[in-house]
Amino acid sequence: MRRVSSDIFLALGAPKEGANLVADLLVRANLAGVDSHGIIRIPSYVKEIEEHRIVPGSKPKVVKDMATITILDGNRGFGQVVALKAMELAIEKAGRKGLAATGAYNCGHIGRLADYAILAAERNMIGLVMTPGGRWVAPWGGMEAILGISPISIAIPAGKYKPFVLDMSSGVAAAGKIRVKAVRGEKLPLGWIIDKDGKPSTNPEDLEKGGAILPIGGDVGYKGHGLSLIVEFMCGPLLGFKELTKGPGKGIFMMALNIEDFTPIEEFKTGVDSYIETVKASRLAQGYREILIPGEPEFREDERRRREGIYVEEATWDEIVKIARRLKVEIE
Amino acid sequence: MRRVSSDIFLALGAPKEGANLVADLLVRANLAGVDSHGIIRIPSYVKEIEEHRIVPGSKPKVVKDMATITILDGNRGFGQVVALKAMELAIEKAGRKGLAATGAYNCGHIGRLADYAILAAERNMIGLVMTPGGRWVAPWGGMEAILGISPISIAIPAGKYKPFVLDMSSGVAAAGKIRVKAVRGEKLPLGWIIDKDGKPSTNPEDLEKGGAILPIGGDVGYKGHGLSLIVEFMCGPLLGFKELTKGPGKGIFMMALNIEDFTPIEEFKTGVDSYIETVKASRLAQGYREILIPGEPEFREDERRRREGIYVEEATWDEIVKIARRLKVEIE
Repeated sequence: MRRVSSDIFLALGAPKEGANLVADLLVRANLAGVDSHGIIRIPSYVKEIEEHRIVPGSKPKVVKDMATITILDGNRGFGQVVALKAMELAIEKAGRKGLAATGAYNCGHIGRLADYAILAAERNMIGLVMTPGGRWVAPWGGMEAILGISPISIAIPAGKYKPFVLDMSSGVAAAGKIRVKAVRGEKLPLGWIIDKDGKPSTNPEDLEKGGAILPIGGDVGYKGHGLSLIVEFMCGPLLGFKELTKGPGKGIFMMALNIEDFTPIEEFKTGVDSYIETVKASRLAQGYREILIPGEPEFREDERRRREGIYVEEATWDEIVKIARRLKVEIE
Repeated sequence: MRRVSSDIFLALGAPKEGANLVADLLVRANLAGVDSHGIIRIPSYVKEIEEHRIVPGSKPKVVKDMATITILDGNRGFGQVVALKAMELAIEKAGRKGLAATGAYNCGHIGRLADYAILAAERNMIGLVMTPGGRWVAPWGGMEAILGISPISIAIPAGKYKPFVLDMSSGVAAAGKIRVKAVRGEKLPLGWIIDKDGKPSTNPEDLEKGGAILPIGGDVGYKGHGLSLIVEFMCGPLLGFKELTKGPGKGIFMMALNIEDFTPIEEFKTGVDSYIETVKASRLAQGYREILIPGEPEFREDERRRREGIYVEEATWDEIVKIARRLKVEIE
């Protein structure tokens, strides 16, 4: 999968490093069980390259460079290339100053946010990544898909456990997850989306027909609404955007925080381990066999899929094969 | 109300400045309609002072002082005094360095988080405040109240609008809100809490009898669970705490981010205004008369209550009167 994906981007003129990075992160998302951010995205990436909305060889340009803050113009490059650079800069500067932030814009889809937040955790930092993504969420009290699905990922290192990795959207479910359900012909639980008339719907197709995803919180949906607005502001006006447009929001905001500047890192990790153990030892709710820490389901799925393989639905694979043939990329 | 509250703290040996600050913030919470963080807290504050868990005249001590990071030992002082100092330091350092964080511990309840986040917004910064608070929330998949209710407040300045102010807990509702319902003899909506056996309950009294608040997210409760864990880690191991204890978590984490270091402040505000207008112009969902921005309901309630007065239920007022009499504080 990785080889075919990378070859497709190479055939479209991407430099080797960029093609490999994008292919690697797409397949890594599939391995983690986050199929919505895996190779299902290839057709849309290819389309964006062919329409010159993404320029595969383009490199991000630093437009602001303070000791703790960087702003990058992505120059229409691959989102993954820009996001990786953004997090690397945040990590480097946080290593020197304790805290650092990077804003970036003008690039493609960055894939799964957790992959960048985890980079910080691997360097003994707390990492934060946010981006508005597709504007699929209805504001609290409204029925139009105006707000970004606004994923937020935060990674925090642990000691003997894998890092804590929260990667959550501000809607009840990510648009990509709903697209996967549509492709697989599955129904949605009630309370995920409304249709174009504002009525609750279980049909995933209703989303793209003028529907909207509901903000998380249910009764208290102002919470998802508020989180989405925060992401919109941090990735929008903070980086110079003046209007909430209909298309997907392309701003990215990242932060890294160097734990050692607060407390000795080994003590921190011992503390996090102990907190995790206490939480895991809670009496279980009915129907649960254990308490999982955010990130754990994905790390486990990664191990399982590396062993057992990745399931890709026919519809997705057929599309990729069609693209590969057209670009004369070898499949087997 | 403010005068009586302040006099109670003065009678207990608080210096004038501290007594006034605490009284002011309590009444401000009532004005904003957040009665759970208003004068209903006086009896528990008085108890803590009388049991020497809070030392009213105590001043916070700086135990770490970097260009972007401060850590404060609250010296068992009023939470409000420590939290105000923490945000002032974050604002001051962010003004110089772009970003700054303060951690603090060893102090009383800090009241409504929004009050500190707003201070940053008033200084053209983005403010963040978090603290675990009472450990009332069941982890996702568990049924014991192990995790903090973990409020997070983020304030972002606007131009012609009041600042955006999100102040949300990671549980479906704050424990204080449930206490207010109990005092007023009201039922809870289903889905807010479980009782000591893990069964859904609408009786607010069940919370304090071994029940737990559910994490936000419903079907996807890992989101509230994850947010609560983040707050626990940032206010716990990051500040040197090694164990998740049963009592309320006292660590505080704050940040300020100086907008001008990213983009000219007037452009930022124009952008935020425009985003708000677009969101407000969305077609309304059934049963809604307008779309509100987080913070707006509280600013409006504040205006209304300044005009019309604050409703305080008999039970709360009687307790305060009893305390005032005992301390020989004049009531009328």
